[in-house]
Amino acid sequence: MTQFMDVHHGMKGITDDQLKQAHKADLAIEKEEGVHFERAWADPESGTMYCLSDAPSAAAVRRVHERAGHKPDEVHPVPLSIW
Amino acid sequence: MTQFMDVHHGMKGITDDQLKQAHKADLAIEKEEGVHFERAWADPESGTMYCLSDAPSAAAVRRVHERAGHKPDEVHPVPLSIW
Repeated sequence: MTQFMDVHHGMKGITDDQLKQAHKADLAIEKEEGVHFERAWADPESGTMYCLSDAPSAAAVRRVHERAGHKPDEVHPVPLSIW
Repeated sequence: MTQFMDVHHGMKGITDDQLKQAHKADLAIEKEEGVHFERAWADPESGTMYCLSDAPSAAAVRRVHERAGHKPDEVHPVPLSIW
């Protein structure tokens, strides 16, 4: 398992409720792809959303997000991290 | 205080040690700007680094990173988040 950071653009005006719903939609199906979405952050002004996950591959992260209705613009493995 | 996610490009080949050194350089001066860098992630392959902080402003985040020698390419407030 590797950590991944994915980025979504074009989400201007996203609300706290919409972020929660999007995350919930991911959690509902993530196990089918062996993915776990840990955290998410959003900037409603620029319309940017970041999601941090543990997953077997970038493709698996993409599949969960696409099936949940919010295809990511970028998915980066982030093997290095500081807690 | 608001949370911020900042992004650095052009860091291809960054090592775990370099990420730790960069973070240490931020921590050494962050208090002077009222900033706290919480976490950081890096993708050596695409050369992308993400830093999560609590700060009074995006300008304060930029100042700490610039003074520590690694100017960010983007700084986004992320008022919405899921833990």
